Amino acid sequence: MENRNKVYIGASLDGFIADKEGGIDWLDSIPNTDQIDMGYRAFMAQVDALLMGRNTFETVCGFDIDWPYEKPVFVLSNTLKQIPEPFHDKAILVSGPLQKVLDEIHEQGYHRLYIDGGKTIQSFLREDLIDEMTITTIPILLGSGISLFGELPKPLLFECVSSQIFLGKIVQSHYVRKRHSGF
Amino acid sequence: MENRNKVYIGASLDGFIADKEGGIDWLDSIPNTDQIDMGYRAFMAQVDALLMGRNTFETVCGFDIDWPYEKPVFVLSNTLKQIPEPFHDKAILVSGPLQKVLDEIHEQGYHRLYIDGGKTIQSFLREDLIDEMTITTIPILLGSGISLFGELPKPLLFECVSSQIFLGKIVQSHYVRKRHSGF
Repeated sequence: MENRNKVYIGASLDGFIADKEGGIDWLDSIPNTDQIDMGYRAFMAQVDALLMGRNTFETVCGFDIDWPYEKPVFVLSNTLKQIPEPFHDKAILVSGPLQKVLDEIHEQGYHRLYIDGGKTIQSFLREDLIDEMTITTIPILLGSGISLFGELPKPLLFECVSSQIFLGKIVQSHYVRKRHSGF
Repeated sequence: MENRNKVYIGASLDGFIADKEGGIDWLDSIPNTDQIDMGYRAFMAQVDALLMGRNTFETVCGFDIDWPYEKPVFVLSNTLKQIPEPFHDKAILVSGPLQKVLDEIHEQGYHRLYIDGGKTIQSFLREDLIDEMTITTIPILLGSGISLFGELPKPLLFECVSSQIFLGKIVQSHYVRKRHSGF
């Protein structure tokens, strides 16, 4: 099976995934009274496992909800020594260079990965390892915060293969990496 | 007539309007062989005048083309002493606080303004003076460059009223400022 690394994330119009304090309350600045899922379940059905950074993992652990994932979760961290006790059976710690981590995950039969977390996504992009991105843009300018994108050694060209508006306000666009284009 | 300040601009997926050297070659990374205008003429038909920063003005002056605007052009600069000779009849120099500049332009009968240039757009956003933004997103991650958006004293909420894909690759979204929303 072809290996695919996919991003599915919400960001402000000015490209932040959290405010300066790491807060994401502004994600709810558009009322979603019918709790539409904006393609999340369909996206999840198309991945075999998740690979997230430590910050994202700890944020999810801190939510006062049941464990939200049905697929295996790999946590990428070079500082964490082990997955904390209550989440021991929920996630698998991985570390080291990205390609080595990917090889390990692929060997376990997981090929289509949901890459999550700001720093993790940026690391993958720096090594041109992201194949698809579904970006849901909340129409708010935050002015500051934690950036979705960061510096890159070279520009990366994508194609926008689809785009739709949810709730009359939120644009979701699906980008696919276009390699061999000179960018 | 109601006063409206509008932005119409292209940006990279990571929010840059020019690369580190001010270059915009990457805008052509998607071939546009039929030279479709992506709504530019329709947008221009809905403004009475342009208000641009000095950098944008000088960039336009440097293009090896005929003067590209049919509408009056105001150049906002607190350093420029006068509009250089060959463009004397093309543009009008304005300076001072934004609201004073706007009052002067409105008094001349121009109410729907195309606000152009990165620094100028950022200044207007800092004072919450932008009413509409048409943002054309080129699906390329540049990794660095001159940002479209900057820091803000407070978050600003918009609505996305329409979104479309051009050339199968480029998303253009039209945002309208939603004031009195708490943001």
